Amino acid sequence: MKELVKLLTSRRCWKILSAGSIKRHISLSPGYLAKQKKPVSAKLLMEPEIEEILAPLRLSVKEQGDLVRRLKSEKAPDIDVQRAVAELKTRKNALEQKELQLTSNDDFDRNKLEELLKQKFFYDQSFSIYGGVTGLYDFGPMGCAVKANLLQAWRNFFVLEEQMLEVDCAMLTPEPVLKASGHVERFQDYMVKDVKNGECFRADHLIEGHFEKLLKDKKVTDEVKEEIRSLLPKVDGMSRDDMQAVLRKFDMKSPITNNDLTDPIDFNLMFGISIGPTGYMKGFLRPETAQGIFVNFKRLLEFNQGKLPFAAAQIGNAFRNEISPRSGLLRVREFTMAEIEHFCDPDEKNHHKFSDVADLELVLYSACNQMDGKAPQRVTVGKAVSERLIANETLGYFMARIYLFMLKVGIDPKKLRFRQHMSNEMAHYACDCWDAECKTSYGWIECVGCADRSCYDLSQHAKATGVRLAAEKMLPEPISF
Amino acid sequence: MKELVKLLTSRRCWKILSAGSIKRHISLSPGYLAKQKKPVSAKLLMEPEIEEILAPLRLSVKEQGDLVRRLKSEKAPDIDVQRAVAELKTRKNALEQKELQLTSNDDFDRNKLEELLKQKFFYDQSFSIYGGVTGLYDFGPMGCAVKANLLQAWRNFFVLEEQMLEVDCAMLTPEPVLKASGHVERFQDYMVKDVKNGECFRADHLIEGHFEKLLKDKKVTDEVKEEIRSLLPKVDGMSRDDMQAVLRKFDMKSPITNNDLTDPIDFNLMFGISIGPTGYMKGFLRPETAQGIFVNFKRLLEFNQGKLPFAAAQIGNAFRNEISPRSGLLRVREFTMAEIEHFCDPDEKNHHKFSDVADLELVLYSACNQMDGKAPQRVTVGKAVSERLIANETLGYFMARIYLFMLKVGIDPKKLRFRQHMSNEMAHYACDCWDAECKTSYGWIECVGCADRSCYDLSQHAKATGVRLAAEKMLPEPISF
Repeated sequence: MKELVKLLTSRRCWKILSAGSIKRHISLSPGYLAKQKKPVSAKLLMEPEIEEILAPLRLSVKEQGDLVRRLKSEKAPDIDVQRAVAELKTRKNALEQKELQLTSNDDFDRNKLEELLKQKFFYDQSFSIYGGVTGLYDFGPMGCAVKANLLQAWRNFFVLEEQMLEVDCAMLTPEPVLKASGHVERFQDYMVKDVKNGECFRADHLIEGHFEKLLKDKKVTDEVKEEIRSLLPKVDGMSRDDMQAVLRKFDMKSPITNNDLTDPIDFNLMFGISIGPTGYMKGFLRPETAQGIFVNFKRLLEFNQGKLPFAAAQIGNAFRNEISPRSGLLRVREFTMAEIEHFCDPDEKNHHKFSDVADLELVLYSACNQMDGKAPQRVTVGKAVSERLIANETLGYFMARIYLFMLKVGIDPKKLRFRQHMSNEMAHYACDCWDAECKTSYGWIECVGCADRSCYDLSQHAKATGVRLAAEKMLPEPISF
Repeated sequence: MKELVKLLTSRRCWKILSAGSIKRHISLSPGYLAKQKKPVSAKLLMEPEIEEILAPLRLSVKEQGDLVRRLKSEKAPDIDVQRAVAELKTRKNALEQKELQLTSNDDFDRNKLEELLKQKFFYDQSFSIYGGVTGLYDFGPMGCAVKANLLQAWRNFFVLEEQMLEVDCAMLTPEPVLKASGHVERFQDYMVKDVKNGECFRADHLIEGHFEKLLKDKKVTDEVKEEIRSLLPKVDGMSRDDMQAVLRKFDMKSPITNNDLTDPIDFNLMFGISIGPTGYMKGFLRPETAQGIFVNFKRLLEFNQGKLPFAAAQIGNAFRNEISPRSGLLRVREFTMAEIEHFCDPDEKNHHKFSDVADLELVLYSACNQMDGKAPQRVTVGKAVSERLIANETLGYFMARIYLFMLKVGIDPKKLRFRQHMSNEMAHYACDCWDAECKTSYGWIECVGCADRSCYDLSQHAKATGVRLAAEKMLPEPISF
């Protein structure tokens, strides 16, 4: 049997998001960390006197990082690895907290700024004459002007300059689409309820709060505190059973009423709706704009005359039914995103405009550096790609473009870094993930998320619908089987 | 008791909407028709040979219009008035159909254009790889470019040039807000269901379809046909009981399966949602963007330093769970609107820029003209206002601006008219309503709706929340009680 064409599923999706703050997702080749061998030299970012204070903390992280690596290479029992990873996270957090404390700007009063922004109606809580709804905000005239200008700048910088294919898709989404994408099953948080008044709490937040209270309690023994310290960094990644065990062991109650709590419940963060009058078509408000791009892949590929690479972009709203929204505009129930999915041949990741950005310096905080207790590194995109710190030219090009856009819209380059996710942080669809983080009064906050979704979404939709979602290319020579 | 200030509720709201096609709402002073005395001279729009054919139809409408007026002035029994109005509508429709037939462009093939637009991915049905969802459409690269340019033109023309206060409000809306606005109770259609397979039909569409079939049926007696002809024009405004009586009397079945049908059911067109994790906060996706402006009235008035008039604008999405969406992009379940609410002192409706537009000619199709079987009239805004065909300068100014915007974005002025709603057409919140209509392959279609909502919304929200939503002004002299 002979095949004249090599079948390609479009394996790489460079996802760019921009939200109330700008969010953008860019993919990275999976498994590239394993290939990363040479250390990248770089200038550290801290002042020498600050570095001196941080040095012992960095060393402590590095020791633990080395232990984790050794245990993994020795294939030590899972429980030992988990314990070591938890301790690594604790030490990493301590380092980060100290660094923030040493470099924070004490003059800045967030509450005052928020008050001013509300008073001048840049934004304010929605429906406040009705008592307000948490996680919903309205933008006033000044906020609208900022938002409109920001979106226009984004559209000019990415869609127009890079000739991307823009789409504008429905927010109402039928259930099968989000079942295929994995959101129906996995886009959730664990929740516990007050058994008497039904008040809801995010289980991880509640456990963390309870632990922190116990750590400050003089009546709690050192032995228990030691156990809590080892559990605390794991809470984020706990399964429902783990959480249930912890809730029971420490006999946790509602922090408000002291009533008993239910066992942890899966709570899907999507808003359910019923489309049409029959009540038979179940759906959801989209939790991200990406799926609209994936389900249009075939049309977009045709629009691009069947050729890869191409990028599709979408600016639109998404909805997440957060259990307990907080942190002002950072975690809300309804928000605008600007997103790019870049589809390319996994074997051809060079970029024709890479030389334009090769000399640009970025601040990179790789997973390795995080494990070694090192500071982020300042390095040119060209060098980072040639040394495989950044996996390939296309990724490097997009990261550079993100950097340039962030600067263009006013982000202070000293408060901007690219941090790679560690393996326990990633969303269900992601193989690899880098965040462009901005340093804010809330600490370092993800403003642009960059996920390699691989061919996950396209192959899921292809499986669910029987429609082939793949690109084709001529091989230089036929392959015989 | 002395009062230094006169209390004003902001009684006039000029509402401007722009949707997939451009929609805009502008208010009109209620009751102005009664004051309208002098006839307005105007050039008729039709060719003389077409006018000759239409003349007897025009006369027939006029005779019936005069009858309705006489019956009303004589305070004749309701049933007689209703019957006369129904006949008036029938004759009006016959005139409109004839006119469309005589002036239509037979060369235009809508299906071909739609096919081309889909092929070039200006837009297409959403989720079509999953079988598609009626009433949901995705815009592709070309459609997005058109939409972005149209919205930018709208924002420049209205928001920036007229210094309006733009807002961007939450789509998720708690139930009490839409209860106060009247949407929970009245934003609905009647629906009947196939008792066996649950298929849903809009009751008015089903009845009209059944009647039209009977009128063509040779076995149906002339007497029954006469009754149907008198009922047909009333279907649109029938109560649930009326519909039920008609459905039973004519023993109507499902047009698809011939199964029995349920009695008509109220079907609210809003998508219900549950906000937050408890399930206790019921809400809806907003069916219009206006309520976001009304609930922010206090902040906007403060932003405008407490002074009237001011206009607030919003571009955003709204959702309507249509029972059976049809007519392509004209009736969809999710759409973008651009809306303006203009708040002004009901005693001061002159406009400082009126002289800029006074010489502009508009095509006006007043309720009076519709009753008299007359064609729309071409008349300058200045003359229309001075003769009270248009109620005041502010309304005239906005209608002129709408006209100029429509021309700017490419509407053929020969296919554009302003038609006033007759009293049985208006939405639950409207006192008066003019539509800017475009002549399309579907006939004359409302592209901009102009509703005078009076103080309905603000006073409803004030009543529901206890928050005072009113403006104040100094009187030249105090008033004593």
